[in-house]
Amino acid sequence: MAFPIDPERDLVLERTVEVPPSFVWDAWTRPELLKRWFCPKPWSTTEAEMDLVPGGIFRTVMRGPEGQEFENVGCFLEIVPGRRLVWTGALGPGYRPRTASPTVPFVMTAIIAIEATATGGTRYRATVLHGDAASRGRHEALGFHRGWDAAFDQLVAMAPKD
Amino acid sequence: MAFPIDPERDLVLERTVEVPPSFVWDAWTRPELLKRWFCPKPWSTTEAEMDLVPGGIFRTVMRGPEGQEFENVGCFLEIVPGRRLVWTGALGPGYRPRTASPTVPFVMTAIIAIEATATGGTRYRATVLHGDAASRGRHEALGFHRGWDAAFDQLVAMAPKD
Repeated sequence: MAFPIDPERDLVLERTVEVPPSFVWDAWTRPELLKRWFCPKPWSTTEAEMDLVPGGIFRTVMRGPEGQEFENVGCFLEIVPGRRLVWTGALGPGYRPRTASPTVPFVMTAIIAIEATATGGTRYRATVLHGDAASRGRHEALGFHRGWDAAFDQLVAMAPKD
Repeated sequence: MAFPIDPERDLVLERTVEVPPSFVWDAWTRPELLKRWFCPKPWSTTEAEMDLVPGGIFRTVMRGPEGQEFENVGCFLEIVPGRRLVWTGALGPGYRPRTASPTVPFVMTAIIAIEATATGGTRYRATVLHGDAASRGRHEALGFHRGWDAAFDQLVAMAPKD
């Protein structure tokens, strides 16, 4: 279905890069690749578990420079190979609602859209949906723009050179 | 994907009835039919809105005997015509996370499974997933078993007789 952006509640990262769409897709969907770019340094992704079916688990563990760890568990909602990946933190594997946790400042759904450019590069758009403007604000204050941008730079830097 | 039942967190209604699976499917997916059975009397369903695609809205308004009204908004996750319908209250239309509301005692995902029996009837299973045992308990205390059973009786009573 179409997902109109709501500027009050959504955060968006758009980039156009000279990296093939197939590489961007692989970097998002292969755990061993995802772990190399998904957290901006000095944070790292120490674990990544993905079952690429609707309702399948998407779990990551992020580790900070002082050794602090955060586990994120969600599930995939849509998988259109090479084009579109949708996942949410509001549901765990098997679509089970997740219990609100006081340590989680916001809940989000992410829609990753990948399109080929005329030159073989990728037009990339990550749309992150929140339940309300306050959740969006907390995510923004925690560094959404800088963080998602820096992580995507790491993905681009991994791509094989011509 | 497979959905193993978790007795700590899930509630299940299983029924085998002499009503064709196609009728059960229609009663679940046509708003004008749904409104006739979805709430056990003396409650009624005054509005029903359904967009039968993943991420599409599923909205109902329930009205009590004293005129009190409750709106429920969620979205569909899986639609397998005649066989399986999955929807959740944890996400609104377009998969947007729903903001927790103090008036909502629990959040659930429902999995409706419909199978034909050898005699042309329906083996029906509604599995309702909650985030934790406490949410399951609140739903049970609010009358899950009696309510879903009585509503399904209303559905069965609507079926055309031989």
